[in-house]
Amino acid sequence: MGAPRALETGDGRSRRAHGRVRAWGGIDLGGTKIEAVVIGPDGRPIGHARHPTPVEGEPDDVVREMYGALEEASRAAGLTSRMLVGVGVGAPGAVDRKAGTLARVSNVGKGWVEPYPMASDLADLAHRPVVLGNDVQVAVAAEYRLGAGRPYRSVLGVWWGTGIGGGLILDGVPWIGRGAAGEVGHMVVKPDGARCGCGRRGCLEAYAGRANMEREARKAANAGEKTELFELMRKKDRPRLTSSIWMKALKDEDALATRLIDRAIRMMGVGIASAINLTDVGAVILGGGLGTRLGPTYAKRLFHAMHPHVFAVERQPPVCVAALGELSGAIGAALLSEFFQ
Amino acid sequence: MGAPRALETGDGRSRRAHGRVRAWGGIDLGGTKIEAVVIGPDGRPIGHARHPTPVEGEPDDVVREMYGALEEASRAAGLTSRMLVGVGVGAPGAVDRKAGTLARVSNVGKGWVEPYPMASDLADLAHRPVVLGNDVQVAVAAEYRLGAGRPYRSVLGVWWGTGIGGGLILDGVPWIGRGAAGEVGHMVVKPDGARCGCGRRGCLEAYAGRANMEREARKAANAGEKTELFELMRKKDRPRLTSSIWMKALKDEDALATRLIDRAIRMMGVGIASAINLTDVGAVILGGGLGTRLGPTYAKRLFHAMHPHVFAVERQPPVCVAALGELSGAIGAALLSEFFQ
Repeated sequence: MGAPRALETGDGRSRRAHGRVRAWGGIDLGGTKIEAVVIGPDGRPIGHARHPTPVEGEPDDVVREMYGALEEASRAAGLTSRMLVGVGVGAPGAVDRKAGTLARVSNVGKGWVEPYPMASDLADLAHRPVVLGNDVQVAVAAEYRLGAGRPYRSVLGVWWGTGIGGGLILDGVPWIGRGAAGEVGHMVVKPDGARCGCGRRGCLEAYAGRANMEREARKAANAGEKTELFELMRKKDRPRLTSSIWMKALKDEDALATRLIDRAIRMMGVGIASAINLTDVGAVILGGGLGTRLGPTYAKRLFHAMHPHVFAVERQPPVCVAALGELSGAIGAALLSEFFQ
Repeated sequence: MGAPRALETGDGRSRRAHGRVRAWGGIDLGGTKIEAVVIGPDGRPIGHARHPTPVEGEPDDVVREMYGALEEASRAAGLTSRMLVGVGVGAPGAVDRKAGTLARVSNVGKGWVEPYPMASDLADLAHRPVVLGNDVQVAVAAEYRLGAGRPYRSVLGVWWGTGIGGGLILDGVPWIGRGAAGEVGHMVVKPDGARCGCGRRGCLEAYAGRANMEREARKAANAGEKTELFELMRKKDRPRLTSSIWMKALKDEDALATRLIDRAIRMMGVGIASAINLTDVGAVILGGGLGTRLGPTYAKRLFHAMHPHVFAVERQPPVCVAALGELSGAIGAALLSEFFQ
């Protein structure tokens, strides 16, 4: 996992060899951390910084921290943020790219509901044009351009983590529909099925999202089922069941963890096969915390779980694990200005 | 249903007013009939002919009959097929557009499995270039250009008939993936669910396709459940439960027909909502024999059945009934040369 190729960082001096700089900034805004990168024309990071997301912060606190991380990444590349061609931001919540606003954010700072003008606020600090994009969609775009998706014209990215995010790239162009396409996690895999965090029933995420699996695991543990999951959580001093905890429990053949992950894979097989039957793209890119952590073995299991449901079965698309690692979101954000404009 | 606008036919003489003809031929190849149209630059039919599909015919018998229908439609437009700019064919089965071949055809003539060079065979007779397309995809394209889809940039067509076909048009371009996109009927709506004609389980088509509903109805009738469905079939001297028979039974409040159609609508709500959550297109176009026959009342019911499952629920796309009627397939086929090339 994680092609070192894309993680190399240089000192960036060569960027100015001919008297001008061709570098882009990218920021991945997450619930716990802000990743910032500066990339050169080949898409490789030449500077990187990570700041914690301000806890309980207002939107403008968050933007100041984003600017701080961007400036630090720029310095690591031997630049300042004012020298960047442009800056892209990958964010969770409801992105309105044209308006440059971000709304309905639940786990960044203290969260907010109404559209907040993040693009213009960050542009005021960095003095560069800023473009917003959806966090999963930009990560998928990065994998398409520079990672596991390179051999394919069209891909479906499935980001398996706390929730299940998704992104479609069709003939090289990110397909966002009217702004909300790619919600593979909210495709219904079982009518009147399990309750999802979104309030609906039977969504893929209800079975396979890490948050929903944790709730299910806790219910089973409270009902007396034996599991090491929560013991591992205490040992590692984590507030929730992280991907590495799930991974460890699977390795230890914990019965509950195995059962829940088996069910998740089975349901992902159903939902992702349905997505393939509709879109007939050439590959599935499996990313996200759980997706990249579980890696090729589980990508193969997912392929087999899809198999009974794929219509054009003679050319079922491969399931490839995301290759850019933790920086895919920030790199994809940096590609936004090139990619979308 | 069926905008008369698109069904008007002229004598076509005006097409040659300036010494040249701008007209395209389109053929919709079905299991029971071959519809041929000739359209002018505005997409309206200026000639039309319908021939029965040769029963038990070899592929070349089918092609000769297609040519006969095309020639007749051309004459109705005051032309001959040699004067057409090009000819499009909408066909069931596996279309390879580049190769101009049609494979895996089960209900045309005696059917065939291996790729048959339909485009070149028809071109040899008509002396015009011939393009093949999928029957449902071309019908959806026609609705997009000239029918119910006109107000929208992107649509999902759902063709509800013997099976459930589908077609995506994204920002004006038919999305065919690697050739097999749009199989909304084979999205899985229930894991390990009802057996589908395709051999898999739990496909939308297993619940909502007319052929599968007929099988289910027969099973129930054989088990003693009262229904007028098969009585209507005998009275109308039909070999199977046609859309008009279902319509009549629903009007008469036949309990079995009502139950099966209710279930079909419920499952279509699940599958089509999932398709919307993935693609976020602006509208659903409901076509096909059952779709157009059941019309706006059932389109509205489908909209409500989708509602609990749509993620971006504040702007759930409308469900519109196809407006071009029986000729949408042939018109869409005629648009192929313009549309795809």
